Amino acid sequence: MSKNFVVAVCGATGAVGQEMLKVLEQRDFPYSKVIPLASARSVGKKVECKGEELTVQELTEDSFDGVDIALFSAGGSISEKFAPIAANAGCVVVDNSSAWRMNDECPLVVPEVNPQDLDWHKGIIANPNCSTIQMMVALKPIHDEAKIKRVVVSTYQAVSGTGHKAIEELENQVRRLMSGQPVVADVYPHQIAFNCLPHIDVFMDNGYTKEEMKMVNETIKIMGDPSIKVTATCVRVPVFYGHSESVNIETELKLTADDVRALLAKAPGVTVEDYPEKLIYPMAINASGEDDTYVGRIREDETIENGINMWVVSDNIRKGAALNTVQIAETLIERDLVRVP
Amino acid sequence: MSKNFVVAVCGATGAVGQEMLKVLEQRDFPYSKVIPLASARSVGKKVECKGEELTVQELTEDSFDGVDIALFSAGGSISEKFAPIAANAGCVVVDNSSAWRMNDECPLVVPEVNPQDLDWHKGIIANPNCSTIQMMVALKPIHDEAKIKRVVVSTYQAVSGTGHKAIEELENQVRRLMSGQPVVADVYPHQIAFNCLPHIDVFMDNGYTKEEMKMVNETIKIMGDPSIKVTATCVRVPVFYGHSESVNIETELKLTADDVRALLAKAPGVTVEDYPEKLIYPMAINASGEDDTYVGRIREDETIENGINMWVVSDNIRKGAALNTVQIAETLIERDLVRVP
Repeated sequence: MSKNFVVAVCGATGAVGQEMLKVLEQRDFPYSKVIPLASARSVGKKVECKGEELTVQELTEDSFDGVDIALFSAGGSISEKFAPIAANAGCVVVDNSSAWRMNDECPLVVPEVNPQDLDWHKGIIANPNCSTIQMMVALKPIHDEAKIKRVVVSTYQAVSGTGHKAIEELENQVRRLMSGQPVVADVYPHQIAFNCLPHIDVFMDNGYTKEEMKMVNETIKIMGDPSIKVTATCVRVPVFYGHSESVNIETELKLTADDVRALLAKAPGVTVEDYPEKLIYPMAINASGEDDTYVGRIREDETIENGINMWVVSDNIRKGAALNTVQIAETLIERDLVRVP
Repeated sequence: MSKNFVVAVCGATGAVGQEMLKVLEQRDFPYSKVIPLASARSVGKKVECKGEELTVQELTEDSFDGVDIALFSAGGSISEKFAPIAANAGCVVVDNSSAWRMNDECPLVVPEVNPQDLDWHKGIIANPNCSTIQMMVALKPIHDEAKIKRVVVSTYQAVSGTGHKAIEELENQVRRLMSGQPVVADVYPHQIAFNCLPHIDVFMDNGYTKEEMKMVNETIKIMGDPSIKVTATCVRVPVFYGHSESVNIETELKLTADDVRALLAKAPGVTVEDYPEKLIYPMAINASGEDDTYVGRIREDETIENGINMWVVSDNIRKGAALNTVQIAETLIERDLVRVP
């Protein structure tokens, strides 16, 4: 790589922002400079990348002069306001919020699945929802081979998806309960310790949560196929890192469990972990800190003609957020698309 | 109730056995005497029922002389051996293990669903698997109204289903992790604290676990309808009490979400908790210690013509085990069936 890029990380002090800095370092991203940006209250904080101490600067309308790529993970309203400002300044934005995902002008990209959608970007590229990304990586090879008609998914989502404060809330609640004290719930509406909350993001008029509808709508956009039907139940569980998903798939053509294992074994970004006889299957604690999406418990669903059940686990902060965002930036570089048309 | 019954509780020191004694007391079960039975190493231990201290006696071949009803929760091999001995002694057995569930001579009963199956008992009645029971209570009114064709269920099961030792294991692992120590896994093959295990009971040749196949096969037997197709993914989560289930249903006839709410609102043993706008939905921590099965997140699944998603939560030790067993005994009394034919 001859050219090196100036990269801004917006929301650099958040759970995902910090992971982005780590991923840039781990993947030796070709940057000449990293500029950590955040809101006024974080200005002056120190973050680190490739051994270099960086001082957090305030995110303003002038932050993007001379910046080639901006990685955003600072919440939807910040993205709504600042992503167009950055793009107007000639900086390509990869945004991790939900603000731009369903905008027709913005590609929604999982690099292993639809890198070609980057070709039509107009300055803002959206990173999909965490629970959607890992499902897409696992479903794409199956869709290519046998055409997916319908997906019934139930998720088991880690608290880190909500951010630092949710991680602290689970820790605090567990500590209080273990010492017989009453718990306090601030981040979530109810106790998350030793409980399951069938509620992620806000409720919509149709009774589904926004998180559930993200899985429905983002799947269609990423796969580029409006015929794929998804119904989702999204559940928060008392796990720190790693989303797990129980995925039931109906395909047009018949695939055996062995077919699916073989397809996924050669799929990019996927590791098949499916040796139940050796008690080996994907688990959140193993996926945590890893890049791949782990798939196991692959078995035929005999209740329909062409059915498959599987268990899909990935680190929601890495592949579900920071890693996928950086991979999009890398793919932009590979395809020579680091410019606003 | 004129007659009072002599009741034996086999496995009286276990998690379910102790809950059975509590349920007998809470429901003022018409017993003249309760005999707590257990293996030799628990002999002499004290348990309590209706304020009376009872001394645990050893379970032997002679334990059932003069006993009317025996409630078993002492594991499959104990049930296999001693249930026929009890029945031969003229004692009606309600067995909470999986030993007799699929035996054609033994009714498999959820009192709200198929009390009539008690009429053909031959001395041994089986109590279904915990995750099946709560699903049956919620599905029966829907099946009666609209005929269920297919169910896709993913479970979120509490560690108490495994017994006292699993409760201690989760507690110990959490304490060790919170103080930075490595964890020990004895009861489960992997760490359960802050993790999800897609593995309950042993793996079968078809790739499913025995727990998953219980949900498939027991549903058919309890509903008395081999046309109902169930596919299940059973998952252990770090929750102490209360199993949660994400249930996707396809029916023959169309039901709206409101139809389902209305059906379940008048169903025995069910409480509808479905006010997402008020952040009210079923949760394990609320169901814990309660008798009912809680159903919420009821919504139409638009990916099929007649589809419903819902979230079903119940106390796995009460309705999933001890309560249902005692309710079977109560139903036997009501139907004058406390005798071995």
